Amino acid sequence: MIDRTIMMRPNSMSKNNAPIPILDETQALATASLENLYRIFTVPEAPNTTLGAIDKEISDNLMGFLSNRIVAVEKSLDDIEADFATAGVPEVPQFVSDYTDFVMEKLVAHSVHTAAPGFIGHMATPLPYFMLPLSRIMLALNQNLVKIETSKAFTPLERQVLGMLHNMVYQQSEGFYRDNLHNSGRALGSFCSGGTTANITALWAARDSMLAPQGDFAGLAQLGLPAALKHYGLDGLAIMVSERGHYSLGKAADVLGIGRKNVIAVPTDEFARVDVAAMRQRCAELRSRNIGIMAIVGIAGGTETGSVDPLTDLAELAQEYDTHFHVDAAWGGPTLMSETHKHKLKGIELADSVTIDAHKQLYVPMGAGMVVFKNPAKLGAVEHHAEYILRDGSKDLGQYSIEGSRPGMAMLVHAAMHIIGRQGYEIIIDQSVEKAQQFANMIAAHPEFELCAEPELNILNYRYVPAALQLELESADRARTVQINKVLDRVTKRMQKLQRAAGKTFVSRTRFPQARYDRAAVSVFRVVLANPMTTMQTLTAVLQEQTELAKDADIVGMIEKLG
Amino acid sequence: MIDRTIMMRPNSMSKNNAPIPILDETQALATASLENLYRIFTVPEAPNTTLGAIDKEISDNLMGFLSNRIVAVEKSLDDIEADFATAGVPEVPQFVSDYTDFVMEKLVAHSVHTAAPGFIGHMATPLPYFMLPLSRIMLALNQNLVKIETSKAFTPLERQVLGMLHNMVYQQSEGFYRDNLHNSGRALGSFCSGGTTANITALWAARDSMLAPQGDFAGLAQLGLPAALKHYGLDGLAIMVSERGHYSLGKAADVLGIGRKNVIAVPTDEFARVDVAAMRQRCAELRSRNIGIMAIVGIAGGTETGSVDPLTDLAELAQEYDTHFHVDAAWGGPTLMSETHKHKLKGIELADSVTIDAHKQLYVPMGAGMVVFKNPAKLGAVEHHAEYILRDGSKDLGQYSIEGSRPGMAMLVHAAMHIIGRQGYEIIIDQSVEKAQQFANMIAAHPEFELCAEPELNILNYRYVPAALQLELESADRARTVQINKVLDRVTKRMQKLQRAAGKTFVSRTRFPQARYDRAAVSVFRVVLANPMTTMQTLTAVLQEQTELAKDADIVGMIEKLG
Repeated sequence: MIDRTIMMRPNSMSKNNAPIPILDETQALATASLENLYRIFTVPEAPNTTLGAIDKEISDNLMGFLSNRIVAVEKSLDDIEADFATAGVPEVPQFVSDYTDFVMEKLVAHSVHTAAPGFIGHMATPLPYFMLPLSRIMLALNQNLVKIETSKAFTPLERQVLGMLHNMVYQQSEGFYRDNLHNSGRALGSFCSGGTTANITALWAARDSMLAPQGDFAGLAQLGLPAALKHYGLDGLAIMVSERGHYSLGKAADVLGIGRKNVIAVPTDEFARVDVAAMRQRCAELRSRNIGIMAIVGIAGGTETGSVDPLTDLAELAQEYDTHFHVDAAWGGPTLMSETHKHKLKGIELADSVTIDAHKQLYVPMGAGMVVFKNPAKLGAVEHHAEYILRDGSKDLGQYSIEGSRPGMAMLVHAAMHIIGRQGYEIIIDQSVEKAQQFANMIAAHPEFELCAEPELNILNYRYVPAALQLELESADRARTVQINKVLDRVTKRMQKLQRAAGKTFVSRTRFPQARYDRAAVSVFRVVLANPMTTMQTLTAVLQEQTELAKDADIVGMIEKLG
Repeated sequence: MIDRTIMMRPNSMSKNNAPIPILDETQALATASLENLYRIFTVPEAPNTTLGAIDKEISDNLMGFLSNRIVAVEKSLDDIEADFATAGVPEVPQFVSDYTDFVMEKLVAHSVHTAAPGFIGHMATPLPYFMLPLSRIMLALNQNLVKIETSKAFTPLERQVLGMLHNMVYQQSEGFYRDNLHNSGRALGSFCSGGTTANITALWAARDSMLAPQGDFAGLAQLGLPAALKHYGLDGLAIMVSERGHYSLGKAADVLGIGRKNVIAVPTDEFARVDVAAMRQRCAELRSRNIGIMAIVGIAGGTETGSVDPLTDLAELAQEYDTHFHVDAAWGGPTLMSETHKHKLKGIELADSVTIDAHKQLYVPMGAGMVVFKNPAKLGAVEHHAEYILRDGSKDLGQYSIEGSRPGMAMLVHAAMHIIGRQGYEIIIDQSVEKAQQFANMIAAHPEFELCAEPELNILNYRYVPAALQLELESADRARTVQINKVLDRVTKRMQKLQRAAGKTFVSRTRFPQARYDRAAVSVFRVVLANPMTTMQTLTAVLQEQTELAKDADIVGMIEKLG
């Protein structure tokens, strides 16, 4: 089908096969580049080129590549920035091998080894090997999922993946899925680039269906929020969520025109679970001020704590207020595949929408989040069309998504669900939760560390507190407690930075109110245990390293000053 | 660093190296899976496996893989859906080789060959070969660009890429980029998953900075749109754009709470360029009704027509109304790298923000869009923080993005800019525009086709109109013209569907008002010429195929009935 002669000689673009025009000397470089350009679209990297060799190295041994090519010792950010300092568009094309050398030395070497067993500070999960060759298939096809004309079988596949997630959460009948899975007028959910977009999508649909068209009123989607509030006789909208809600909810409230201050952050109990009674009270108060409750958001796997809100109670509250109940299970969702732990998410099946990230505990590469809707007509509230694509009645998934052009990431979720299977995920999840429990026990038993709370899933928080201070804190008065915690906050910050800079292991840090300190905010380490290669030995090493770091002169000084 | 023994025996997770627990028979399957699971994270695909062989096949010959593995003949959507029909989560893990067989047969075979030289219907561009091995590096690293703790050198790289795009548009001084490129309090733009998210980001920043905090008023971001309108004494907001604006603008207006009806679609001239006088009139009218002009949007490379609005005139209008001027150059932006054609985008440097998609004319895989802002403080209007990341003063790019977790796609833009270079892009762009011009000439000269307008860049529209009807349309009265065009609309639709089903070449279709038919909406073919492998021979073949399709009984019948 492709005539290589023509491809390599693009100047011969005339109907009558006219000869290639003769170019003068000033065009010599451009001519050379022209040929090079055709080559980059038609001639692959040979295995013996620099880039070909790297490609093979990754294919042969991913963990080896990451361990060998990423340097462990921190290069200062200033120094790294110096390698990316100019804003000029490069004028002359560069050889692929030269560019590859640059990438290996300046970029790869100074990346973060997020798959390292000791990198337990963020929700970064390692990739199963099959993800790389399957990703190559996905990239080679370069489909665009916004419309079926550029995605074909990928569109049914994406609908199936959304169906699987829907099934995981809602477990509807076979007939339900037969009627809805490939129904052009229905959407079981929306595939997004991540959990933030998924949460925004859920709240967008919640807002637009709450203030829907009614009689002569064309609805919020058409006329905007101010007109909609006026029509419905409301003085504002509020989103109810725990104070431990993900920051994307505040961002969603900004984007959607609700306002960040109208995300009502409700206090939590000692396990970082939202206080439903307090939320009920706030709802009543808001209603008395004529503020509409736009959504109640529950958390299933808090970003900082891994905690799960009392979802059944929240569902009941949402029903009382006839409002949308959204569950942010970006992290915790896959727990539903564990027979042992799924009970912890009880009530999630009552949610109107649920966010689950595939690039977290489904072990898919970065850039894959989903939101599923109990009612497959709900996304109709945000449906949109265009003349050249997304025509009414088409199966184009772009009709229901906040994003436009999208890659075929759903293929990688489809692959993971099949190759790992529910049983496989169950094992990984059970191991992670057990590891968190064991690590919590280890911390609790250690004289120099303080555990914040028993972990519910596989995330936990703790801090370094010398034994003497732990003892003192047990009986200290309020002023002294505040004084000690202020210093410990600085210790936590300093220790986390030192540990990060040393590059051996990594925990993150955060800050939130602690029940045991009268709900004063305290800085703590945050550990996320989802890497199957992390062992108890790794975790022992983390604590050992931190104990060593406590000998840092600054840290010793801070603690000594406390007297 | 990694102890393989431990990795392969995860049950040995106890401090004292206790022996692996003995599992009873009912756990046998799970045990087997457990080992398999550790294998998928630690043992790569051997080259002699099914997936390893496919990986090699793609690496050796991308175009061959696409041509050989994607079947040309259309399988019905119903039949494809049957392969993705169940919503159950697969229970038992599947062998990678079995899954790969499924993917090749059911998914890859029925994908769309978007890189085929004859696939000229959508903005799908082929990938240079180096994108695949470089993507493998990006995927292997699996960085998360939301925060520097999970991206390190990728964050400076992304800032540099945004700087390059900023430079391409605004050409500020070296000092400007030195001061802003890596300044934690500044952002030259935001890297998004695509142009839609980029457009939403631009309008989000426009809205929030227009209704910013003032005195005791905390601003729209905090208090929401209704409160902000009240504070500023406005009765509503409007976004001004050509009727040819991308559908993402309507979606943005919905998401942002402005309302789709408040996107004011202004008519265009015969070249599909917005009528600035008409827009000025609408602005005056809106102002007289106390509606705030939130943004004026110009188009540089219309999705359907490739047209470019009079950007300098729009900038002037935006200044008159002291409003945000956004240019949607998702398609046309890279034209700025052509010395020959960049003058067509004159005035873009006056825009407050500009959207450019990298997965279009920068030849990067799907999932890479950007928006750059002239004023690097503008994104401060939507800045956000969290306790565990995105702390104030950090360089975390997630502070300014609508999305949260994001992959390292910026690396691929960085690569393309270096390996292709400005000179390389110039050649590709010049060739594309010239090809469009030549194709337009070919259509205009052909007795059976009607060209809608001379193309401005590399997108054009035309339709099949038999010679006799072309002649008749020249002098037909209004009623007869309407009658003929109604039939031709059906012909266009039928022909496009037949052509798509045949799977040899592909054009898309759309529908918009045509100046020559008193601005009546007419269905037309839409052709996008950005594949360097598309030759004039390809385009000749497209017209030949369409001439053949005109012999289809239905089409002949439709035309005969016109008499």
